[in-house]
Amino acid sequence: MIPIRTPLTELLSIDYPIVQAPMAGGPTTAELVAAVSNAGALGSLGAAVSSPENIRQDVARIRALTDAPFAVNLFILDDIVPDETVIAAVNARLAPLRKELGIPTPPTPTRFAEDNAAQFQALIDLAPPVASFTFGILSEAQVRQLQRVGTRVVGTATTVAEALAWEHVGADAVCMQGIEAGGHRGTFLNPHEALDTGVMALVPLAAHAVKIPLIAAGGIMDGRGIKAALTLGASAAQLGTAFLCCPESGASALWKATLQAAGADSTELSRAFTGRSARALTNRFIREFRDERAIAPYPIQNILTRDIRSAAAAKGIVDFPSYWAGQGVGAIRSMPAAALVETLMREAHEA
Amino acid sequence: MIPIRTPLTELLSIDYPIVQAPMAGGPTTAELVAAVSNAGALGSLGAAVSSPENIRQDVARIRALTDAPFAVNLFILDDIVPDETVIAAVNARLAPLRKELGIPTPPTPTRFAEDNAAQFQALIDLAPPVASFTFGILSEAQVRQLQRVGTRVVGTATTVAEALAWEHVGADAVCMQGIEAGGHRGTFLNPHEALDTGVMALVPLAAHAVKIPLIAAGGIMDGRGIKAALTLGASAAQLGTAFLCCPESGASALWKATLQAAGADSTELSRAFTGRSARALTNRFIREFRDERAIAPYPIQNILTRDIRSAAAAKGIVDFPSYWAGQGVGAIRSMPAAALVETLMREAHEA
Repeated sequence: MIPIRTPLTELLSIDYPIVQAPMAGGPTTAELVAAVSNAGALGSLGAAVSSPENIRQDVARIRALTDAPFAVNLFILDDIVPDETVIAAVNARLAPLRKELGIPTPPTPTRFAEDNAAQFQALIDLAPPVASFTFGILSEAQVRQLQRVGTRVVGTATTVAEALAWEHVGADAVCMQGIEAGGHRGTFLNPHEALDTGVMALVPLAAHAVKIPLIAAGGIMDGRGIKAALTLGASAAQLGTAFLCCPESGASALWKATLQAAGADSTELSRAFTGRSARALTNRFIREFRDERAIAPYPIQNILTRDIRSAAAAKGIVDFPSYWAGQGVGAIRSMPAAALVETLMREAHEA
Repeated sequence: MIPIRTPLTELLSIDYPIVQAPMAGGPTTAELVAAVSNAGALGSLGAAVSSPENIRQDVARIRALTDAPFAVNLFILDDIVPDETVIAAVNARLAPLRKELGIPTPPTPTRFAEDNAAQFQALIDLAPPVASFTFGILSEAQVRQLQRVGTRVVGTATTVAEALAWEHVGADAVCMQGIEAGGHRGTFLNPHEALDTGVMALVPLAAHAVKIPLIAAGGIMDGRGIKAALTLGASAAQLGTAFLCCPESGASALWKATLQAAGADSTELSRAFTGRSARALTNRFIREFRDERAIAPYPIQNILTRDIRSAAAAKGIVDFPSYWAGQGVGAIRSMPAAALVETLMREAHEA
């Protein structure tokens, strides 16, 4: 397949302007990341909920499978102090669901997230070709620390102001995440959730405002979407949902089947699963919590709802798990990652 | 400029795959509509809040100014029964704003909207080349009635299900309105407001599901956006905000100045002005009503807030008027409509 050269493909030494999105919590196995990178695109390990030790193991496995560039993604989290009253309120709200599933309220954990500083140190030690970040912003010193070990730094922005902030701290590129994207919204500057900018508006505005290369994310499922993203001023397109049903993806069989059965108009943003706004297939859990106020902040809600999602999935109940998916899910395909990358590029050339 | 041929340009006998969006309540003067149509694109008269008599006058004026095809847009409204309790609650909520502006609470009007059936009859009598509709769906019989007088029928959809519904009643084309679009959301099938599909996901999914030509709307401000929309499977791009600052636009000088001062990240959806979700520049009115429950349904809220918006605008206060704008407003330009159409096409050819 003929490469498409853009400032980002040059910067990262990849053939194709395609990034496989980091999807934390299972889907981005070392096999998926390596298959995508071997195919000429950029695979990304979603390491946000992995321990430093697991990150080291996954990166070693990726390196055993490919010599091509790949990315590792972390969240940037503020320290949080769990509020016992909020935890009690959430557990009270979840009690009927636990009863329905026949599971007990688990003891409140002593830890709600991996040690973010230790995760960051693992990145410095591992020096992956690319490190990408979601949910916050690094300091200029942290960006330089990564760049000094040879790692390119990619931020995530949902607004032009956030893109400018990433450019200001010296990031090499920024992923512009449109409202269409599946999983967590990366918003970090503007807390009110009304900013819901779609790729069609976000990418041209950001391309006008910042000089670093842009990666367009959200709703892109085929080569037409990739070509459209490049036309709008992006230097690459990031696809997550499109890769979820690859055999190399670690998404569960039930998640994959549910994605393939989903049509158009089937996702929505919800804070109910994790405490942060994230897009998933609409199901009973999301519907029940649409107007809910008893939601703890991320990552507390994420941990408090985890047993319910796991227990339901184990029973084959699709009404409660968080089946992350973007707005384009109705166009999902299932094929090996390398074949998907080739298909996307063929379509992009033909579009 | 070299035309771009698509199924829609063929169907409507226009040179360029560009539709100037209907924007009711002032902006789409006969001069704007005619200038756009004379330039080879499709001008649209936003006639939703115009009386049948005014629609007749405007269409006569357009016809005096151009022989080219143009569109007339109406809303499709259900009959509503004003609820006195709701009206009193809304007026109570608005009282502090009226006090601040030094205006009295106006008497409750006896009518809240033009006679929708009489507006529709005006369309049948006038037989414009194109009639487009927002907020609802026509019956098959109504679509045929228009088609029999030689009028092409274009529906508005915000989901794939709505696009299918318009295809089912025999529409000639459907405008796919992404979350990025300014002004009112055209949603009519799914009342819960969580469906927020962006153009990047909506257009490819609809192109796969329906056979009639699609018009992509939302966030498109330049030729790159038009080219991207065509790449995604649309047969034309619809631009509203992009035309608001044309000299032929009837938007007020203050509205135009406010649009030109607006940057990126500056709009949001709100029901506060009219009772229906619509995108405007964020201002104090929107912020104050973000969590408001005392909002009457459309068109009642529209009429109840009208005096406040007018009085504020008359005083040069930009904190209260409904300055409709799409997410791409940060890229707005001011030039004559014909020059804008030419610029858009040049950019589309170069993209």
